[in-house]
Amino acid sequence: MRPKFSGVFAALTTPFHNHAIALDKFKDNLSRYNETELAGYVVLGSTGEAVLLRDEEAEAMVKEAKATAAPTKKIIVGTARESTQATIDITNRMAELGADAALVKPPYYYKSQLTQDVLRRHFLSVADKVRIPIIIYNIPQNTGIAITPALLIELSHHPHIAGVKDSSGVLSNLTEALPRAAADFSFLIGAGNVFLPGLIMGASGGVLAAASAVPALWTKLYALFQAGRLDEARKLQLDLVPLNRLLTQTLGIPAIKYSLDLLGFYGGPPRPPLLPLEEQGKAEVKRELERLGLL
Amino acid sequence: MRPKFSGVFAALTTPFHNHAIALDKFKDNLSRYNETELAGYVVLGSTGEAVLLRDEEAEAMVKEAKATAAPTKKIIVGTARESTQATIDITNRMAELGADAALVKPPYYYKSQLTQDVLRRHFLSVADKVRIPIIIYNIPQNTGIAITPALLIELSHHPHIAGVKDSSGVLSNLTEALPRAAADFSFLIGAGNVFLPGLIMGASGGVLAAASAVPALWTKLYALFQAGRLDEARKLQLDLVPLNRLLTQTLGIPAIKYSLDLLGFYGGPPRPPLLPLEEQGKAEVKRELERLGLL
Amino acid sequence: MRPKFSGVFAALTTPFHNHAIALDKFKDNLSRYNETELAGYVVLGSTGEAVLLRDEEAEAMVKEAKATAAPTKKIIVGTARESTQATIDITNRMAELGADAALVKPPYYYKSQLTQDVLRRHFLSVADKVRIPIIIYNIPQNTGIAITPALLIELSHHPHIAGVKDSSGVLSNLTEALPRAAADFSFLIGAGNVFLPGLIMGASGGVLAAASAVPALWTKLYALFQAGRLDEARKLQLDLVPLNRLLTQTLGIPAIKYSLDLLGFYGGPPRPPLLPLEEQGKAEVKRELERLGLL
Amino acid sequence: MRPKFSGVFAALTTPFHNHAIALDKFKDNLSRYNETELAGYVVLGSTGEAVLLRDEEAEAMVKEAKATAAPTKKIIVGTARESTQATIDITNRMAELGADAALVKPPYYYKSQLTQDVLRRHFLSVADKVRIPIIIYNIPQNTGIAITPALLIELSHHPHIAGVKDSSGVLSNLTEALPRAAADFSFLIGAGNVFLPGLIMGASGGVLAAASAVPALWTKLYALFQAGRLDEARKLQLDLVPLNRLLTQTLGIPAIKYSLDLLGFYGGPPRPPLLPLEEQGKAEVKRELERLGLL
Repeated sequence: MRPKFSGVFAALTTPFHNHAIALDKFKDNLSRYNETELAGYVVLGSTGEAVLLRDEEAEAMVKEAKATAAPTKKIIVGTARESTQATIDITNRMAELGADAALVKPPYYYKSQLTQDVLRRHFLSVADKVRIPIIIYNIPQNTGIAITPALLIELSHHPHIAGVKDSSGVLSNLTEALPRAAADFSFLIGAGNVFLPGLIMGASGGVLAAASAVPALWTKLYALFQAGRLDEARKLQLDLVPLNRLLTQTLGIPAIKYSLDLLGFYGGPPRPPLLPLEEQGKAEVKRELERLGLL
Repeated sequence: MRPKFSGVFAALTTPFHNHAIALDKFKDNLSRYNETELAGYVVLGSTGEAVLLRDEEAEAMVKEAKATAAPTKKIIVGTARESTQATIDITNRMAELGADAALVKPPYYYKSQLTQDVLRRHFLSVADKVRIPIIIYNIPQNTGIAITPALLIELSHHPHIAGVKDSSGVLSNLTEALPRAAADFSFLIGAGNVFLPGLIMGASGGVLAAASAVPALWTKLYALFQAGRLDEARKLQLDLVPLNRLLTQTLGIPAIKYSLDLLGFYGGPPRPPLLPLEEQGKAEVKRELERLGLL
Repeated sequence: MRPKFSGVFAALTTPFHNHAIALDKFKDNLSRYNETELAGYVVLGSTGEAVLLRDEEAEAMVKEAKATAAPTKKIIVGTARESTQATIDITNRMAELGADAALVKPPYYYKSQLTQDVLRRHFLSVADKVRIPIIIYNIPQNTGIAITPALLIELSHHPHIAGVKDSSGVLSNLTEALPRAAADFSFLIGAGNVFLPGLIMGASGGVLAAASAVPALWTKLYALFQAGRLDEARKLQLDLVPLNRLLTQTLGIPAIKYSLDLLGFYGGPPRPPLLPLEEQGKAEVKRELERLGLL
Repeated sequence: MRPKFSGVFAALTTPFHNHAIALDKFKDNLSRYNETELAGYVVLGSTGEAVLLRDEEAEAMVKEAKATAAPTKKIIVGTARESTQATIDITNRMAELGADAALVKPPYYYKSQLTQDVLRRHFLSVADKVRIPIIIYNIPQNTGIAITPALLIELSHHPHIAGVKDSSGVLSNLTEALPRAAADFSFLIGAGNVFLPGLIMGASGGVLAAASAVPALWTKLYALFQAGRLDEARKLQLDLVPLNRLLTQTLGIPAIKYSLDLLGFYGGPPRPPLLPLEEQGKAEVKRELERLGLL
């Protein structure tokens, strides 16, 4: 029940065409991802516009991922809802459909009520009742809720809580939590701009939105680290920072999708309220992809 | 299409029993609210734990509200989703079920992408396609997204955008927006601790969570203001502040539900991750209700 | 030792010429202010660029204020320092030079250490040792430190703590604190856009930066409120909001100084790092002054 | 004029006895620090309670540092003031007294006016007029003002701006700024919990508050990194995290001073409003020092 998660996981986009999910495009993208060194995929994460999907669309995505993903690729599915019970139900439904693990961000609407104690009870209740391992998802820039190292350490000892994806970019979350977390707890970096430093400090891998656009560069970075070729790894990490910033901070999902379109995947438009890139944003993305030798 | 909203609207709770919605309890509560001077009800607002409900539960609540609410009471339904299209769909569905207006908070997950321009397009797209008036819902303490006075002024000129519920407590939102908003735009105060000051500056009413617990005191405050009995109004406003703080800030929904239980309504437990009040919280609520002469 | 502060206090600018304080210009300004209905002056407040002055410059300003202010005008001097003892020393020095009261913002550099308990001890230590009344200064938008209503209530009972200037714009600070504060405690509004609502809820006056630019309009607003002419007061309050916003939020001190230059006072340049208004800002200020019939 | 800063710099405390600066204690501490591998000292930094000192006290500290520091140890002095001109004057005064470089945090009081453009002009004005190199000091947790990587890159090309001390803990500031900053620009880590990751990504050293308490452990960490003994370095970094957290986040300066008292240096009390550690804090600090084998 408690596998180790290591290597690079790509947070996948959800392809739309004429406002509907384009499962064929998703299948094509997956087929190409299957040929990479990615350790697996996150479906229905933040990058997957999960909060913009209907339940049946979400299920269709997971079914397609299960049908098409190479057997060696782990499928992690975003399943969090504001309600504790709904999170359990969706997680178990996604488990039936083939999810290997669930990525669970905290509830975040009733901010003044969501104390660390309430969050602890929520995660433990979910963990008690799910049939697949869960990975805690810390992304305070979107949720406004920070999971403290102290809470993470406590949660790490539940047998169904296998790891954390930390997208905060605050590396002290790792250096504070990891030494005191359960021994087989997986710390996954969710902020591409600190991926290498995180690996060096003990992270077992990363869940990276930018790895959906340029998977080979991130898996190369991971391989260089694994091989102890630190100077090359550092150079590559620094080279990737400007693109990563465009794809995950300045421009976001529309820029990831535009990159996919340029690089032979299907990107397509985001779903409103998100809007496609304007010309200036497109030029910035193109320039960075050219600088990295990808166009 | 653009009615004026004035007076006191109570943001209603959603009663649960054995983890399921208790429609009979909701009916009983509504019957009692029908006898008050409330101008109407908000169903599926923040107080209604809307983010913790399934779609079919939400629909059942609106149907019951429509069936039981006195014809003079307006029914405002919270209908916002992260997706623009989903917000439109749910709003129109709730219109079919009898909603008089929709309360629409902004999307708030992709914070770095949700510029004022993106929010403007979102609200205008929604307003273009809905069959009932919408009321913008500004509650930055929960969403992390603030709707600026400048955006509000712009939105106020759309014929389907009838007003705003401002729960921020920042009264300058009113003093800055109201003089330049469309003439028949309704500014509704959503923060009970500044209800009277808001009325004096031009708000036409309030949508108040605490009015679900103690409706008569808030409608009395409104009536005192209407009658120009300002000294009495001020005294009552100040008297209500400590209870309002408990019900909407310190302790939140569990405290509203506990108050209902004490006052002859049905409160019941909140849905997890929200937790029932502990003993200390109960004592604080009881003390305030006693101080106000209600117990 | 505990006088009541009521009416409109103008937060005065510090005039510079060739980078030095221009005491003659300050004297001229004061002579004009003496002819207004202002209740008094704040010297060395935020508007006075106090944090940009040397100690001897600060003393010269207070001496000039004492020499020139009409005897009926109270002189309130900003005296806060990060160090508790330094705050005491400067306060007592300013008392010697003629200050009637001191305006004391909290220390704010060591944010993680400055708990409400540390702030309480700081203010009580200062209050114990000063020879003039102090007015607590809550301006979290600049300091990053909020003084809670609970702390304010506690501090209000010290005989040397005469009141608070609240510049937060959060009117619930008043509605929560005032009913439980000491009976003769003065609540002064520091945010011009909620001046009238504050008065109606029980504030005894205001300390307003914008009152240094257009004193007659703010004292008129206060007089209308005093006379119970609420409709006229509300109209004037709303009329003043756009100018107030420019002078205290969007453009700040340089806009106040530019207004003074336009209105026959001496404004002059701010001290770097603050920079004089650019053309666009000047045009905005001019337009608002014209709209108010002042140019 | 643009030396490289590398290695470990300790941010020194300011010893007080009977509320006055105890220069003899400072001399004793310095004599002991001279025997370490520290690259130099920061005097009058945040750790040095600089904002709590009078100007003459500040000067006395720098004179003593110059008199006692070993000639190989660089002396970096905190010199920032809110006023641009005052910052220049103090910096040049400290240069006269023997400072090798100045540590300059941004102005931070007039937050709404302190745009990145205003900050840029401020730092460039200071840099133009000072006689020693300056090191930009980014500590948004205290100032509320963040210096963006874009601004830092621009400032790095001024010949008098030698580097940055980044205490934010946000390592992407380094990964984003360093590849595009001037070639000889020194990036110094100011957050002990990410010291090693920072070194690995290209930082040339650190300015560490915790290095005033346990200098040998931090210089050992730096030496391990220099020697390519990464596994040992990582282990030591993780070992240091809990103490670092106590000394720089949870408990702060009082905990550093208490550590000094336990370890044979002079710590003494902080200056109010800062308060000495209470018993619980003392026990926590003691426990961590014991765990590290230092007691």
